[in-house]
Amino acid sequence: MKHARFFWQGGIHEGTVDAGGRLRDEAGREVSTTDIAWLPPLVPHTVYGLALNYSDHAKELQLEVPKDPVLFIKAPNTFIGHGAPVVYPSGVAYMHYEVELAVVIGKTGRNIKREHAMEYVSGFTIANDVTVRDFVGNLYRPPIKAKGFDTFGPMGPWLIDKEDIDDPHQLTLRTYVNDELRQEGNSRDLIFTIDYLIEYISSFTTLYPNDMIWTGTPKGVSHVYPGDVMRLEIEGIGVLENRVVAEQ
Amino acid sequence: MKHARFFWQGGIHEGTVDAGGRLRDEAGREVSTTDIAWLPPLVPHTVYGLALNYSDHAKELQLEVPKDPVLFIKAPNTFIGHGAPVVYPSGVAYMHYEVELAVVIGKTGRNIKREHAMEYVSGFTIANDVTVRDFVGNLYRPPIKAKGFDTFGPMGPWLIDKEDIDDPHQLTLRTYVNDELRQEGNSRDLIFTIDYLIEYISSFTTLYPNDMIWTGTPKGVSHVYPGDVMRLEIEGIGVLENRVVAEQ
Repeated sequence: MKHARFFWQGGIHEGTVDAGGRLRDEAGREVSTTDIAWLPPLVPHTVYGLALNYSDHAKELQLEVPKDPVLFIKAPNTFIGHGAPVVYPSGVAYMHYEVELAVVIGKTGRNIKREHAMEYVSGFTIANDVTVRDFVGNLYRPPIKAKGFDTFGPMGPWLIDKEDIDDPHQLTLRTYVNDELRQEGNSRDLIFTIDYLIEYISSFTTLYPNDMIWTGTPKGVSHVYPGDVMRLEIEGIGVLENRVVAEQ
Repeated sequence: MKHARFFWQGGIHEGTVDAGGRLRDEAGREVSTTDIAWLPPLVPHTVYGLALNYSDHAKELQLEVPKDPVLFIKAPNTFIGHGAPVVYPSGVAYMHYEVELAVVIGKTGRNIKREHAMEYVSGFTIANDVTVRDFVGNLYRPPIKAKGFDTFGPMGPWLIDKEDIDDPHQLTLRTYVNDELRQEGNSRDLIFTIDYLIEYISSFTTLYPNDMIWTGTPKGVSHVYPGDVMRLEIEGIGVLENRVVAEQ
C-alpha cells in the first residue's frame, strides 16, 4: 500500500495510491493529482541522516570510508513534498541533490538487535538530501547550515509499506536532472545497512514512530541551478520530482 | 514571569512561579513542588546547540576558536525536566555536564537582522547539554551519539520571560557537582552572541516558536558518575538539578 498526504480543497488529506496509480482521499474519493499539492507522506519526528554511507560517494568526495555511521539530524524546516519548489539560496556556488532511500520507523524501540530491526520499520519513501557544498568544509562538521536551508528536504511522493518491497537492499536509485541521468546506485552498496543502522541508533536513543533514517546517497552528485528539475527514482517506490527556483 | 510545565495528579499542567517561589497551576491553585514531576518548560520544536562558543572552553579542549558558529541539533529523545534522572550509559568513561543559557524563540522569522533579533525571543531557561566525550572524536563531527542518549537534555526548571532579564549577556553560569563548584563562567564571554546567532541561523532556516538555541558552555567540564548530582545555576533564572543514575 502507498500512503500519501496532500493539500486539496483547502485541507490536508491522508490518502492512498492504488495499483493503477489512482490517488484516493481518506473517504475513498478519487482525487486528480493535478489538483493537489503533495505534502511529505508523514510528519517526521526525528530524521537521522547519513553522510558517506556509499563507498563510491565517499571516494568521489575524496574521503575515507568511516568506521562508524556518520549521523546528522535533518531539521524540520527543510521538509517539503513531491512537486514543491526547492529554493536556491542567493550567492551559493555548489548546490547538490542527493537521492536517498528513506526508512520510516513504525514503533517505539530501544536497544533493538539487528535481527529484529525490520519489525520496527513501517515502510520507505524517497528523500532528496539537498546540500550546499559551499558550507560543508570539514565533512565531519555538523552540516546544519549546508543541509538546513528551508525546502532542502523533499520527500515522497508517498510512503510505501515495507511488505511491498521485497528487499530494501536491492533497489536501484537514480537521479535525473532535466531528463539527463546524473546519479545511479543500488542500495546493495550501503556501507551500513538498514538493520545495522537501526541497531546502532537505538543503542543510544529511543526510536519513535515517524522517526526516519535517510540512508545516504551513492556516487553522482553534481551541481544544480535555478530552473533545473531534479527527478529522483527508487525502484519499486516511485519518483520524487522537485524544481529548483531562485530565492526571491 | 516564570512559566513551568509539570506532571501532577495524573495530568500535565502549565503553570507559573510567583516572586515568592510558589508554583501555581493554570487555574491559580498553589501546588507543592514535592508532589510534582517537572517537565521541560516548553515542548521544543528544533533545538540548535552550539559547540565551542566560549573561548575558555575551546581552550580547555585544546581547540581553536571557530570562525563561524559550530551548530548541531539536539534530538528530542533527550529532553527531560528539572529533577528527572540522567541515565549514565553502561560502559562509557567520560560523561560531562555542560551548563548553557538556553534561548527560546517566540515568533516566526527568517533573515532576522541582529538589531531586531531580541524581538524574536520569548525568554530563557537553563539547559544541561550532557555529553559523553568518548564519542566525540573529531570535535567537528556531528555529535549525534555523544549528545543524543535518552535523558541527555535536561532543561528548566522554568522559562523566564525575556523582560525579566536585564541583560542576557551579563549572567553568571555555575555548575556544582555534589555541592562542589566545578564550572563557572559568564555569558558576557559568548563568542557568538544571542543576536548574532539569531541572525546567523535565520539566514538559512526559518526560526519557529519554541525553537531553542543552547548557546554553549564555558570552561569547567568534568566527569560525572552514577550517584552524582549536577546542580546548574544561571543568575536571574534559577537552578536546574538532575541526578545521574546507572543504566538498568
